[in-house]
Amino acid sequence: MVQRFTARAVVVGDRAGTVVPDAVLDVDDGLIRWVGPAADAPPAPDAEVTALSGVLVPGMVNTHAHSPMVLFRGQGEGLPLDRWLREVMWPREARLTPEDVEVAMTAASAEMLRHGVTTSVEMYFHPEQIAAALRATGARAVIANPLIGLPGFGTFDEQLDTAVRLSADGDAQVEYGIGPHAAYTVPLPVLTQAAEAARVHDLLLTVHVAETATEGADLLATHGLSVPQLLASHDVLGGRVLGAHCVHMDDGDLELWREYDVAVAHCPGSNTKLASGTARLRDMLDLGIRVGIGTDGPASNDNLDLFEDLRLAAQLARLRERDAMALTAPEAFWLATGAAADAIGRPDLGQLTAGRRADLVHVDTDDIAFVPVGEVTDLLTHLVWSVGSRHVRDTWVAGRQVVADGVSTTVDEAALRAAVQTRAMRLAGR
Amino acid sequence: MVQRFTARAVVVGDRAGTVVPDAVLDVDDGLIRWVGPAADAPPAPDAEVTALSGVLVPGMVNTHAHSPMVLFRGQGEGLPLDRWLREVMWPREARLTPEDVEVAMTAASAEMLRHGVTTSVEMYFHPEQIAAALRATGARAVIANPLIGLPGFGTFDEQLDTAVRLSADGDAQVEYGIGPHAAYTVPLPVLTQAAEAARVHDLLLTVHVAETATEGADLLATHGLSVPQLLASHDVLGGRVLGAHCVHMDDGDLELWREYDVAVAHCPGSNTKLASGTARLRDMLDLGIRVGIGTDGPASNDNLDLFEDLRLAAQLARLRERDAMALTAPEAFWLATGAAADAIGRPDLGQLTAGRRADLVHVDTDDIAFVPVGEVTDLLTHLVWSVGSRHVRDTWVAGRQVVADGVSTTVDEAALRAAVQTRAMRLAGR
Repeated sequence: MVQRFTARAVVVGDRAGTVVPDAVLDVDDGLIRWVGPAADAPPAPDAEVTALSGVLVPGMVNTHAHSPMVLFRGQGEGLPLDRWLREVMWPREARLTPEDVEVAMTAASAEMLRHGVTTSVEMYFHPEQIAAALRATGARAVIANPLIGLPGFGTFDEQLDTAVRLSADGDAQVEYGIGPHAAYTVPLPVLTQAAEAARVHDLLLTVHVAETATEGADLLATHGLSVPQLLASHDVLGGRVLGAHCVHMDDGDLELWREYDVAVAHCPGSNTKLASGTARLRDMLDLGIRVGIGTDGPASNDNLDLFEDLRLAAQLARLRERDAMALTAPEAFWLATGAAADAIGRPDLGQLTAGRRADLVHVDTDDIAFVPVGEVTDLLTHLVWSVGSRHVRDTWVAGRQVVADGVSTTVDEAALRAAVQTRAMRLAGR
Repeated sequence: MVQRFTARAVVVGDRAGTVVPDAVLDVDDGLIRWVGPAADAPPAPDAEVTALSGVLVPGMVNTHAHSPMVLFRGQGEGLPLDRWLREVMWPREARLTPEDVEVAMTAASAEMLRHGVTTSVEMYFHPEQIAAALRATGARAVIANPLIGLPGFGTFDEQLDTAVRLSADGDAQVEYGIGPHAAYTVPLPVLTQAAEAARVHDLLLTVHVAETATEGADLLATHGLSVPQLLASHDVLGGRVLGAHCVHMDDGDLELWREYDVAVAHCPGSNTKLASGTARLRDMLDLGIRVGIGTDGPASNDNLDLFEDLRLAAQLARLRERDAMALTAPEAFWLATGAAADAIGRPDLGQLTAGRRADLVHVDTDDIAFVPVGEVTDLLTHLVWSVGSRHVRDTWVAGRQVVADGVSTTVDEAALRAAVQTRAMRLAGR
């Protein structure tokens, strides 16, 4: 059965910022079959037609998240980092059960879908529960099984074996990857092994890199190498590698990223709230480094709204470069859609073009935020600068509607909120 | 008739970040008569009771706006500043009629009310049409009649006379002030005269100061003084003076601001989008300088959403100071409420305390963005970090409901949007 969507316009999500006015988009078996102006649309007499008054945009791709941390949103605000970790985060995470993660991920996934995010890269404990949550909401994810030395989570070898074992169960909706936490927390030989496994099985390897100015200081003192240099020298780069944050990178580090085609998950919201710094986004793009936007976990952002992060990416790039043209509106939107899909090695996602998966978001344009429109490209400008997630009305993943008129069609959001509240209080020891 | 509001909590909007759980707020004749926990509420058997499931927060105060520029929102995006001015802004503004301003201000005012902004400081042409728009929507403003040397707007003397004449018509809803554009566009003797008039009539004088790094260069070359020094030496400071932007201020400039009790309209959204820089917010607050948040005009932000700007203020302060504690959530919210009211010299606004005007905003907390809540103050944390204007449900000005369930009760927003679109296209010469 062919589904035909008609819309005021389709925003493709490509680098050029293409906007197709008065558009038709046809979907067949979860894939986009045709996109273009209504006047040129092929005949489709038997299609099931969905007429949308607003714009259709690609389901956005969140390249870096620890979404089950919705359990900790806003908790301990106002504490300095060390007290926040010791008094708030660690005691709570020590009490975390697999069921907590499943409930929290289900709630977070529904929240992302309502914000127009259809795919996320997840790095958190209990990957099978994260997968179950996605099967419930209908969203996509790449679940990078964490490698981290914490009590109760097995040896590094066991964690890596789990990642590889799980990856056999992956599909286009739920893909598994490998998520060694960082070079300062995971032994270098483990990183080498993980990268080798990722290359052999064509898995995404994602690792925190240079998030703060000081995190690589001990490594530099020991090895005389920056974190990127260290990763290169230990054969971690090459393959589908995605560095999260990459805030504190010198020219040589960026050059390594270019050479090894390492992608970047740029997390401006988290990096500002935690005062980590501003990544060299313009330089990365000019070097041809693949970059996508990420929210990071909702305990450090504190939300899962890529519209906010893509706008902040443009704002911070302009401040950093002291140039109001340093990142344009089309580039900012591309960083949350087409570029983000490329950054995670998923060219089947992120753009509304024929052959890609039909992950679609309907944004209501019947709002003063979308006025005026002279050129059709003004719609994209307004999307970036004036519009928030509140304008997302409907979301489809592989042609299946998962949000209708702002409400999940797959899970009970109110019940999930109540469950997150209850579990968060138990984790807080109340 | 006493109105009694009950709510999950009242966020007072003070510097301490006070949140009153399970709260009652009584309104009598447009003024707040009592606020506190329900358990302590005075008897009010005849009160008209409005039971709210979410939180009540103060109507926010936008300290710097050129709101009728909704006519130009997003137009010319992607052009450098000089081409944007020559090709987009100036030709359009040359065609602007008083009716255009009234329609645009009505639409913009309805938009602000829907975002929880009940008061704005406006600096734009045709002040009487701006006032008419506010009478229609029910919002408050201080309308600073612009002093600027443009064809069709009279001499500076005439503009100043108009400002003073209009001020006699002011009241608590629509107050008039004086808005000389800037020291680099208005002759210094005119600034001196305007400041004198403002002091005599107790009017707000608001002027752009140090928005960009280079705007004072000619003045410095001629006079050997920074813009703040120049304003001080020409007797412009003292009285109710509000400097907009104040991005490029050295220690001596800030000291002058402290000495003369000059307030600041901090506009982080505009300053980032235009790459102007980041104001020294933490330093200003530490010196005791009064600061409120402003959106600036929607051609350079591009919206009128103080929730976004207050969050950005906290983000940029943290990045600037390299300290995740540089601006806390309570301080950020205060900068858009109580502190903003103080910055514009209106201690009758901005906080939900007895004796102030009953400008109230109901924010829906039935959303995952407000979960979890351990302490009641978590509600304020979530307001700042996780919640956007989309959660504003209802707005009252002086106890009169002007937004109900997200929709204006006073004007037809859909008709206004259509009118803004039509007028914007005429102004664009289409």
